[in-house]
Amino acid sequence: MTRADCDVIGIGNAIVDVLSHADDDFLAANGIEKGAMTLIDAPRAEYLYGRMGPALEMSGGSAANTLVGLASFGGRAAYVGKVRADLLGEVFAHDIRAAGVRFATLPTTTGAPTARCLILVTPDAQRSMSTFLGASVELGPEDIVEADVTGAAVTYLEGYLWDPPRAKEAFRKAAAIAGRAGRKVALSLSDAFCVHRHRDEFLDLVAGPVDILFANEQEILALFGTPSFDDAVRTLATGRTLAVLTRGAGGAVVVAADGVHAVPALPVAAVVDTTGAGDLFAAGFLYGYTQGRPLPECARLGALAAAEIISHVGARPQASLAGLVA
Amino acid sequence: MTRADCDVIGIGNAIVDVLSHADDDFLAANGIEKGAMTLIDAPRAEYLYGRMGPALEMSGGSAANTLVGLASFGGRAAYVGKVRADLLGEVFAHDIRAAGVRFATLPTTTGAPTARCLILVTPDAQRSMSTFLGASVELGPEDIVEADVTGAAVTYLEGYLWDPPRAKEAFRKAAAIAGRAGRKVALSLSDAFCVHRHRDEFLDLVAGPVDILFANEQEILALFGTPSFDDAVRTLATGRTLAVLTRGAGGAVVVAADGVHAVPALPVAAVVDTTGAGDLFAAGFLYGYTQGRPLPECARLGALAAAEIISHVGARPQASLAGLVA
Repeated sequence: MTRADCDVIGIGNAIVDVLSHADDDFLAANGIEKGAMTLIDAPRAEYLYGRMGPALEMSGGSAANTLVGLASFGGRAAYVGKVRADLLGEVFAHDIRAAGVRFATLPTTTGAPTARCLILVTPDAQRSMSTFLGASVELGPEDIVEADVTGAAVTYLEGYLWDPPRAKEAFRKAAAIAGRAGRKVALSLSDAFCVHRHRDEFLDLVAGPVDILFANEQEILALFGTPSFDDAVRTLATGRTLAVLTRGAGGAVVVAADGVHAVPALPVAAVVDTTGAGDLFAAGFLYGYTQGRPLPECARLGALAAAEIISHVGARPQASLAGLVA
Repeated sequence: MTRADCDVIGIGNAIVDVLSHADDDFLAANGIEKGAMTLIDAPRAEYLYGRMGPALEMSGGSAANTLVGLASFGGRAAYVGKVRADLLGEVFAHDIRAAGVRFATLPTTTGAPTARCLILVTPDAQRSMSTFLGASVELGPEDIVEADVTGAAVTYLEGYLWDPPRAKEAFRKAAAIAGRAGRKVALSLSDAFCVHRHRDEFLDLVAGPVDILFANEQEILALFGTPSFDDAVRTLATGRTLAVLTRGAGGAVVVAADGVHAVPALPVAAVVDTTGAGDLFAAGFLYGYTQGRPLPECARLGALAAAEIISHVGARPQASLAGLVA
């Protein structure tokens, strides 16, 4: 196996976030599932946007946030995702490239506009997401460049890729290429509702090509259909997958071949917006992992990045994560 | 004179801000005048955007920020400005309406896209702005609805309207209507470089239709061509215009018929981004003014709004200003 020329290549739904504040009554009145990512169509997006308060727009997308975080640590990052050649598509491409992530996926020039995610942050800092997938549904296996995957130490895939019709083929192609090349495949479960939608296939992935699994507590319980976190840890301990489980303020647990490592969350002066907490935890962990650091240190880097992201609005770091490490 | 059914109607360049961080070296290397608002054309906008770091997009525009601030205090606000019927135009219209400001100006459907302002915030919290005026240059007198101006207690105009070719005709039409109706006309000088571009006309406006003048220290010195703030205050004290002069951390000075009132700035834990400080000072002042409050109290409301806006990134309030008053 040749030396990797990239630390992590991520594949995900390329999305621009539209962030606003709302209270629980607004969520209830508009049928928004609190804390979840719900898929919506264009008319629903227009309806919700029309009722939302003033918003700010910034690039998002789960795996994209993770790769931007990895680059902010100083890691070598690449991203694959589909935008349309429209204004939000240009914003997405500009922001991810300006963050130091290689992004070369061709945009679409017909069809739906660039994907957007309407994110409502409630006073408790919880975020509820309504996603219009738009052009991101056009991602397919033809967007996976074999040399890019074989050249990356880790191929990182978001579970949300199972939602659009053809992205899972891109996902499977990339995982197969990485496996043949002796590279690692990582999967983030993304969201408990997403796990419910695709549970059997996700179980097959974890038993199959996935080397590193990222999940929060709700997601791992949904995957194994167990009510107990400890049961989930015991199940994972019998498998060959390295599992990185986050529990919010409860810290994180790494289930590895050499045992179970628990790492606390970092204290935060004020939790402002939890959007991107899991994405950035994965960024810190993967940065440490690809640098060959011990697993507890990888998890501490994840906690550091998650603490930065929940201290402000938005899912992209405002501070240099390499600077925070130093 | 009938009772006003609106407190303030504002007329300005309708702009979406593209906010990013940069250091002084970046400004120097790219020929950006620090602290100023510089007009740029489309190729320069594309060039600068291509070199800027990851950004966030949010509605801006000087007078628009002021009207959003006024509405956040609980004031009745309306806005006139020109966007194109494109994605950023929809963002602008959504955000200002969602903030409670009446906005009914028809968008253009041909020509340049919605205006954008590339704002670079340096580590000292200073902002440097490069504005592509886009569709906002299409604003003209035909966009001024007489009943909207006669129905507003104050017509608020930004000096930046002197930059596009036809907006000054809209400005003059609105001022004339307001004058005939016995309403007040307010002018913000916007920017010292803008004052240098249009000094003679601004002097005529201050000697003529303008009842309330907003300026910061650099702008008022540029207007009167005097090196001394005290000289500027003395000059203003001989005129009939109510002048509201802001001096950043040095507080504000109101020059009125009944004398000169100095009000301190409010302490801020950390100055993050000064974008919109003047716009929001005007919002607070005009809210107090249209509520019939004493002038020093009007200035204190201005200081309150300015303190909120410089505590975070962006020129639109994140907290309810009415809530901060209470």
